[in-house]
Amino acid sequence: MAGVSFMTRNIKLVLEYDGAPFFGFQKQPGKPTVQQALEHALSRFFNQPMKISAASGRTDTGVHAENQVVNFRTPSDRDPGSIRKGLNAHLPPHIVVKSVEEVSPDFHSRYDAKSKIYEYRVWNAPFRSPLLNARVFHVPFHLNLPEIRKAARRLVGRHDFSSFTSGSALSGGPGKKKGGRVRTVKKISIQKKGDLLILQVEADGFLYHMVRNIVGTLLEVGRGKRRPEEMAKILRAKSRRFSGSTAPAKGLTLRQVIY
Amino acid sequence: MAGVSFMTRNIKLVLEYDGAPFFGFQKQPGKPTVQQALEHALSRFFNQPMKISAASGRTDTGVHAENQVVNFRTPSDRDPGSIRKGLNAHLPPHIVVKSVEEVSPDFHSRYDAKSKIYEYRVWNAPFRSPLLNARVFHVPFHLNLPEIRKAARRLVGRHDFSSFTSGSALSGGPGKKKGGRVRTVKKISIQKKGDLLILQVEADGFLYHMVRNIVGTLLEVGRGKRRPEEMAKILRAKSRRFSGSTAPAKGLTLRQVIY
Repeated sequence: MAGVSFMTRNIKLVLEYDGAPFFGFQKQPGKPTVQQALEHALSRFFNQPMKISAASGRTDTGVHAENQVVNFRTPSDRDPGSIRKGLNAHLPPHIVVKSVEEVSPDFHSRYDAKSKIYEYRVWNAPFRSPLLNARVFHVPFHLNLPEIRKAARRLVGRHDFSSFTSGSALSGGPGKKKGGRVRTVKKISIQKKGDLLILQVEADGFLYHMVRNIVGTLLEVGRGKRRPEEMAKILRAKSRRFSGSTAPAKGLTLRQVIY
Repeated sequence: MAGVSFMTRNIKLVLEYDGAPFFGFQKQPGKPTVQQALEHALSRFFNQPMKISAASGRTDTGVHAENQVVNFRTPSDRDPGSIRKGLNAHLPPHIVVKSVEEVSPDFHSRYDAKSKIYEYRVWNAPFRSPLLNARVFHVPFHLNLPEIRKAARRLVGRHDFSSFTSGSALSGGPGKKKGGRVRTVKKISIQKKGDLLILQVEADGFLYHMVRNIVGTLLEVGRGKRRPEEMAKILRAKSRRFSGSTAPAKGLTLRQVIY
């Protein structure tokens, strides 16, 4: 928070992006990332080197966002409308700033998030869909929805999700110590719209690959390879070896951050 | 129809494709087209040079299809399920065969079509949508929907659509002589879903660029550049100079062919 004077404004941005061309959200040397493109646009618009203060969470390579929330600080008095217009003029076509809002000085897009909703889209039909392919995971097998729903219900609640993460904590929920793997999954909803299966997971925080590992495991339940009752055992095991495969990134979208 | 013996079966295919990577449906030397990819897959699957007999219509470069209908003839007795599976194995990811059905020997995917429904998608918001961008036309201006609907109603019916075509007839309706530009627009529906404006045009046949020129003209009505009452005058003029600009291909999808 160095360099924040009483004149500094805290600005909240809501972003939409197509994750396909990016190596995830977080900056990495020499690779196109959303953060790098955004900070480049900020620096061009404000005509000085700029960095964001925080983002609600770091989406992985290939993961999309409909409403990613980011905040940054600036002494500039440019109005939100011009900031939105200016940033969009400097951003590549795969990223757009949907809204710009001045928020209170202590707003933090990551720590203040009460929960986030991720959506995972499965195309459940014998053959792929060329028109949806970029944003769905194609599963050609019959899926037993009641069984998937039963398994999903067993994951809802406050649990240690170590079995569903491939690595370190992706984002902390409120009031938890860093590195802990206990998260509260508030809701998992599963909707069928024609051949499209839409899974939404709302939680106070997500571990690395957590949604994709949950979806991969639920799809194995849907195919009859696992029973819904196994979920409790998987959670208890606290080991990635017990859960299913990681569903591919392109089916995943950060839908909403709730403050 | 040369080479058709009493043993020859007539096979109807329903295709979905993403038009972006193709130079339209119709075969052109040295260019990737849907027809070329399909005939290549047919030839590979049946292990001999194959051609389609007809398609419901030829979509232009960049135009998508959810349910394009094609038919071809073959003496092979392979069952529809294996044909579908085999063709999909040989087709590029942007095309899929959704269904295969043996039909009566005289079925013709183009001449037997009673009507076709095209859908045009407009993203009507101040800024582009990265997640929808590949399949919408972004219009950042306010659009007056009641005025668009009023203008659309004046295009419904049997009219000479010369003013809405850039060239020769794209596909004939039943019982009309070749090259005529009289078509019957059965319905134009206009729906708003959030910032997405969806225009559907159903007609017994479409001229070259007809939907895109109708949409371009309706959007000028929506922006207040034209009045709905002008539609009658534009139709009467029978000249492309009187209608609006051609909306871009990427927003257009062939939705359905009705037999």
